[in-house]
This record gives sequence, structure tokens and C-alpha cells, in this order.
Amino acid sequence: MPDLGKWFDQVRWDEHGLAPVVTQDAASGRVLTVAWMNREALEETARRGEAVYWSRSRKRLWHKGEESGHVQKVREMRLDCDADAILLRVEQTGGIACHTGRESCFFRKLDNGRWVSTDPVKKDPALIYKK
Amino acid sequence: MPDLGKWFDQVRWDEHGLAPVVTQDAASGRVLTVAWMNREALEETARRGEAVYWSRSRKRLWHKGEESGHVQKVREMRLDCDADAILLRVEQTGGIACHTGRESCFFRKLDNGRWVSTDPVKKDPALIYKK
Repeated sequence: MPDLGKWFDQVRWDEHGLAPVVTQDAASGRVLTVAWMNREALEETARRGEAVYWSRSRKRLWHKGEESGHVQKVREMRLDCDADAILLRVEQTGGIACHTGRESCFFRKLDNGRWVSTDPVKKDPALIYKK
Repeated sequence: MPDLGKWFDQVRWDEHGLAPVVTQDAASGRVLTVAWMNREALEETARRGEAVYWSRSRKRLWHKGEESGHVQKVREMRLDCDADAILLRVEQTGGIACHTGRESCFFRKLDNGRWVSTDPVKKDPALIYKK
């Protein structure tokens, strides 16, 4: 058997050292968000048992929920056939994954050639990020 | 109201003109695959009502199932809060999304520091791609 390296080295990181991550509510199956990880974020996620992403806009590790409290407790981590995409199945604290205060970031649905918002705001973002 | 352009122009395509797409089984909620679309793939998907991706390896439009017959009938298309990721909820023909003959491309689960295959091969790829 060849030495395949550590599990986090088996991910095929892209030219920026990143891989897309799909995060799904383990109970409802709802897809909550798509985010990005680098190797360090993946290791941190495994170490903490909570989702840690790489924020491409802020260019730093981002422990999801660090400001909002809406952390994502990881129940399962999966890797796809090409080893270039990751799936997290999580328990979503507060039932809110989106910075808009909605359950899921995918709150818009294509309807007759328009993206229509289908999900209610569960909590006002001004109350979520009240620092 | 500003003219926001057509619905497919409202997607924030990346520097390569692409966006990641999560495809989920509409019935079971299982995440089947992560793929990529450009604007043309998205328009084609809407026109056909079946998933059409951009194959980054083959550098061409890829009508999912064109060889295997495992087309994905689109039941719903969603866009995320940042408008840079797309979610398809589909009916998966044959119950097989992965080129390995498995239901989902995410057939490996992290288990004690190893990626362990958890899903059976439902059909031998040699029989799926028998041309």
C-alpha cells in the first residue's frame, strides 16, 4: 500500500489551496450554505467539531458563529469521488445559517425567470450582530 | 428600480466565469454532487429542465447523463445570499449520480482519521459506460 498521507492531505486543493464545502442540516437535510476551506480550516473543523471555513473576503480562518453564536456542530464529514469537494452534515445552532437571519443561504428560488425569496427572516441581523 | 438584468446575469460568476453548483436529490435530500456551471450551462439547464454543467476537465458543456443515461431532472433551482453558488434539487434518473456507480459522489465519510467508503456500488461502471 502506498502512503497516501494524512486524511487532510488527500483532499485535492485547488490552485488557491481551497476546496468548496457544502454544509447541510443533518436533521432536515436542508442545504444551508456553500463555503470554502483550506487545509488549516479542515484540520480546525475536525479538531473543534465545529465548522471552520476560510473566508475569501476577509482572507482568514472563520469559525462559523464566532460573532453570531450560530455555530455548526459537525456530525459527519464526507469527501466526494474526485476528492475536491467536502460535505459537512451539521447541527445548526439557532436554526440560522445565513447572515441575513434566515435558516439557509439558499433562500431564493427561480420562479418564472426571477429569483424569489421564499424563506422568512427568523431573526433580525441587527440583533444577531449587535456589537 | 434599477435594471438588474436577466436572472442568469444576477449570478456572481468567478474569475473563470464559473459558479459551484450543489445538486441534491429532491426526494431524499441526499447531496449527490458538487459541479460547476458557467452562464451558458445555467441557461441550458433552465431550457432543458435537466442539469447541464461546465466540465472543467473537458472544457465543454456537459449534459449530465449524456453517456450514462443518468440525467438529473431539475425540480427547483436556488441561489445563495451572495449570489455565487447555485443549488439544484433534482430527480436523479437511475438513482445513480456518481461515475463510480454509486448514488452520491459523497460516498466517503471521515472515520477515525480515514476516509471510509460507506455506499455500495449500485451498478458496475463498465456496464454504465459500455460504449
